[in-house]
Amino acid sequence: MKKITTEEIEILLSTKNYQGLRDIFELYPEIDIAEAINNIEDTANIITIFRVVKSDHTAELFNYLDQDHQEALIKTMSDKEIGTLIDNSSNDDIVDFLEDMPANLVKRVLNNSSKEDRTVINRLLNYKEDTAGSIMTNEYLEFINTTNIKDTIDQIREKGKDAETIYTVFVKDNKRNFLGTVDLDDLIFAKPTQTLEEIMNKDFVTVDVNTDQEQVAELVRRYDLNAIAVLNDDKRLIGIITVDDIVDVIQEEANEDMSLQAGVSPLDDSYKNTGVWQMAKKCFPWLILLLVIDVFSSMVLSGFQSQIAKVAVLSAFIPTIMDTGGNAGSQTSSVMVRSIALNEFDKKDYLKVLWKEIRIGAIVASVTCIVAFVWFLIEMYLNLVVYPGNVSGLSALDIFEARCGISLLVSSTLFLTIMLAKLVGCVLPLFAKAIHKDPALMSGPLITSIVDVSSLLIYFGIFELISVVFHVTFE
Amino acid sequence: MKKITTEEIEILLSTKNYQGLRDIFELYPEIDIAEAINNIEDTANIITIFRVVKSDHTAELFNYLDQDHQEALIKTMSDKEIGTLIDNSSNDDIVDFLEDMPANLVKRVLNNSSKEDRTVINRLLNYKEDTAGSIMTNEYLEFINTTNIKDTIDQIREKGKDAETIYTVFVKDNKRNFLGTVDLDDLIFAKPTQTLEEIMNKDFVTVDVNTDQEQVAELVRRYDLNAIAVLNDDKRLIGIITVDDIVDVIQEEANEDMSLQAGVSPLDDSYKNTGVWQMAKKCFPWLILLLVIDVFSSMVLSGFQSQIAKVAVLSAFIPTIMDTGGNAGSQTSSVMVRSIALNEFDKKDYLKVLWKEIRIGAIVASVTCIVAFVWFLIEMYLNLVVYPGNVSGLSALDIFEARCGISLLVSSTLFLTIMLAKLVGCVLPLFAKAIHKDPALMSGPLITSIVDVSSLLIYFGIFELISVVFHVTFE
Repeated sequence: MKKITTEEIEILLSTKNYQGLRDIFELYPEIDIAEAINNIEDTANIITIFRVVKSDHTAELFNYLDQDHQEALIKTMSDKEIGTLIDNSSNDDIVDFLEDMPANLVKRVLNNSSKEDRTVINRLLNYKEDTAGSIMTNEYLEFINTTNIKDTIDQIREKGKDAETIYTVFVKDNKRNFLGTVDLDDLIFAKPTQTLEEIMNKDFVTVDVNTDQEQVAELVRRYDLNAIAVLNDDKRLIGIITVDDIVDVIQEEANEDMSLQAGVSPLDDSYKNTGVWQMAKKCFPWLILLLVIDVFSSMVLSGFQSQIAKVAVLSAFIPTIMDTGGNAGSQTSSVMVRSIALNEFDKKDYLKVLWKEIRIGAIVASVTCIVAFVWFLIEMYLNLVVYPGNVSGLSALDIFEARCGISLLVSSTLFLTIMLAKLVGCVLPLFAKAIHKDPALMSGPLITSIVDVSSLLIYFGIFELISVVFHVTFE
Repeated sequence: MKKITTEEIEILLSTKNYQGLRDIFELYPEIDIAEAINNIEDTANIITIFRVVKSDHTAELFNYLDQDHQEALIKTMSDKEIGTLIDNSSNDDIVDFLEDMPANLVKRVLNNSSKEDRTVINRLLNYKEDTAGSIMTNEYLEFINTTNIKDTIDQIREKGKDAETIYTVFVKDNKRNFLGTVDLDDLIFAKPTQTLEEIMNKDFVTVDVNTDQEQVAELVRRYDLNAIAVLNDDKRLIGIITVDDIVDVIQEEANEDMSLQAGVSPLDDSYKNTGVWQMAKKCFPWLILLLVIDVFSSMVLSGFQSQIAKVAVLSAFIPTIMDTGGNAGSQTSSVMVRSIALNEFDKKDYLKVLWKEIRIGAIVASVTCIVAFVWFLIEMYLNLVVYPGNVSGLSALDIFEARCGISLLVSSTLFLTIMLAKLVGCVLPLFAKAIHKDPALMSGPLITSIVDVSSLLIYFGIFELISVVFHVTFE
C-alpha cells in the first residue's frame, strides 16, 4: 500500500481542492494522513482540513497528531469546533491527549465538553497512570440479562456507533450486578428469541480499576479477548478496555522493559519525535549513576595495586571476568523480568525459582569454567597474553605450571562469579516485584555493576588465598 | 476469577463425574483447564476428558496442552478421534502443534485429516518460520463485491462457525481479485439492500505471504486491525491473520529481542516449562563466545603490562571505563533495535539517524566527562583510590597536578569511549537490518565486547600520548 505524502496534501490545500481532501480520508488510514500532516508547520493550513472534512474523520486524525500540533489546534479552534471534536472522539482518546497538555488548554477543552463528558473525563484523568482506569473507556454497550437477541441487535444498531466496540457487549442483572459478556459472533449465530442470559460467557475475566495495565494486557492476551471488563470496588462495571489499546500497551511495556534493561529511561514518544536533548537526558542519569557506583570496583583495584604492580598479568583478565559476570547476570535477570511480566510466578514459587537458577548456574558455570581454563592456556601459549614475563631460565614445566596457575585462578574466579551473577540476577528482580517496584529497574547495568565489584573481590581473594596459603608466587 | 485446579479435575475423573467434567468447560476458559491438566501424568485419564466432553471444547483444550501431552494423546487416540480433533481445530493451530511433533505422529495426523485439510496443512507447514504464511489460516469468509448486506449476514450465520473470525470479511470481484475488507460492525450498521462494494474499506492493508511476522504485527497494531489479509505473489487472497495471534507475536518478538539483548538465546516455551539443562544450553554459547572475544581486551592489557606495573592506578579505572562504554553502547543499540522493530526507519533515514546519534553522543559524552573528572578527583582526595602511591615529599600542588592528570586521562577516555559506543550502538543494528539479519543480535553483549577493546586502546593511547608527547610521568 502506498502511503499518502505531505506534498500531496499540501498541493490539495494550496489548490483549495476540498473534495480532494475529503477523498483522501476514504482512501488512506487516518494514522498515515496524520503522519504526513505532522510535517506541515502552518496550523492555519491544518485547521482548514478540520473545517472541510467530516468530523468523525478529523477526530480520529487529531488523536494521531503530534502533541505540538494538537496544542496549536486547540489554541486556534473556536469553542464550537472544540465541542465537535470532543463529541466525535472516544473518551479514552481525549484523556490520552489531555494528560500531556498544559492546564489552560485542558480547561479550554473541558469547558467546551458536555456536562456528562466533563464528569467522565475528569474521573478518567484522576486514575493513576498505567492502571486499568487510566486506559479504559466508558463507551460500551450494556444490556439486562433478560433482553432477547433480536432486541439486543436492534439496540446495537441504534446505539453502537458511539461505542468503542460492539464486538463484545456486557450483561448485567436489573440490580446492575455484572453477569457476563456476549461476543457479537455469538449474537449473530443465536436464535432471535433466545435471551442474553442463555448465550453469555460465564467464564469471563475482569480486572479491577487499579490493576496495572501490564497485567490487564497479559489477561487479554492469555484469554484472546476482544475487550475486558473493568470493575470498581463494588464489583460494578465502570469501563472496558479493547484489544487494540492492549496491543499498544504490550508494545509500550516491552519497550519500557528493554530500555530499563539497557539503562536508558523509556522514551515517551517515537525515536523520530524525540529531540536530541531529550534523548541525551534519557541517557546520562544512568551513565553517571553507574559511573559513581563503579567507585567500588575502583576501590578494590586500588586496594590491590601492589599485587597488580607485581603481577601485572592479573589486569589482563579483568575485562573477561567483568564481562562474563555482567553477561551471566543479565541473562538471568532478563529471563526473570519477562517471566514476571507474564505473571509466571506466585510468591510461593520464589524458592523453587531460586533453586532452579542455582542448578542452571552450576551447569553454566562448570561448562564455562572448563572451556575458559583451556582457552586461557591457549592465549598464553600463543603469546596473546604474555606470561610469565621473562621465560629465560625457566623450564617448560615451570612455564606450564605458572600458566596453569594463572588459568586456574581466573577460571575458578569465573565459576564463582557466574554462580553469584545468576543468583543476583534472579533475586533482585524477584525482590523488586515483592516490594512492588518495576523488576526491569533491577536488571542489566545495575546487576553488572554489583557483579563487577564482587567478581573483583573474588578474583583477588582467590589470588591471596593461593599466594598466602599455598605459598605460590606468581611473577 | 478463581482458576480451576488439578485436584478438582482429578476428583471429577476419579469419581467418574462426567457431567461435572462437561460443566467445567462452561465455567472456565480452556487455557486454564489445560494448565491444570498439564500436571496430570496419566494419559489414560486425559483421554477420558476427550471422550466425554464436546469436541469443540477439547480441540481448543488440546491446543493449549504441553507438547509431551499432545504427543502422548495423538499416540493413544483412535484414527476416528484424531479425525474429529482435526475437524474441530483451526488450521493454524494444527500447523502450530505439528511443527514441533516427530515425523511419525505428523504422518498419523495427516492420514486422518480430510483430503482438503491435508492439502492446506501441508502447504502451511512449508512456509518459512516467522513469516506471515506460517501463522496465517485459510479459514476466513470471502464474498463477491456485488453481494448485498442481507445475503452476506445470512451466509455469515451459515458458514461463520468454521471461520477463524467473522469480525472482518473479505471482498473480491468475480475474477478473484482482492478488493477490500468489511468489518462486522459496518455490516450491522448498513442497510440490508446495500452491497459490500458500497461499504467496504478501500484503505485496507495487506501483507505478502513471506512478510516477516514482526512486520505483520506492526501493521496490525498501527492500523488497529481485527484481521489482516495475506496475499500471494499474484495478489490473490490466500489467508488471514487475526489480532489474537498478533498479540502473541508481539509478545514473542519482544521476548526474543530482550533475550538477545541480554545474550541469551530466546526460550521456546515459558520459563516454568523450560528444563534446567535447556536453560543452561541457552546461556553458555553466548558466555563462551564473548569470553573468547574478550581475548582482544586481554591482549591490549597484556601489551601494556609494563605501564600498568609502573602506574598501577591505571587498572583501578578499567572497570569504570569498560562499564560506561558498554552501557552507552547498549543504550543506543536498544533504542535502535526497538525503533527498527517498529519500522521507524527507511534506508534513506540511516544518515539522519547517524547524525542524530552523533549529536546525542556529544552531549552525553560531554556531560558525563565533566562529572567524571570531578568525581575522580573526589575519589582520590577521599583516598578511595590511592594516588599518588607515596605522597611524602610531594607538595599539595604536586599532588593536585598528579591527580588532575589521571582524572583528565580517564575522563577524556570516557568522552571518546561514549562517542564511539553510541556510534557502534547505532551503526551495528542498522547494518544488521540492511543485510536482513535480526538487529537484536547486534546489541548488548556483542557491542559491549567491541567497545571494551576500543576503550582500552583509547585509554592507553591517551596515556602514551600524554607520557611521551608531553613528557609527563605518572607514578
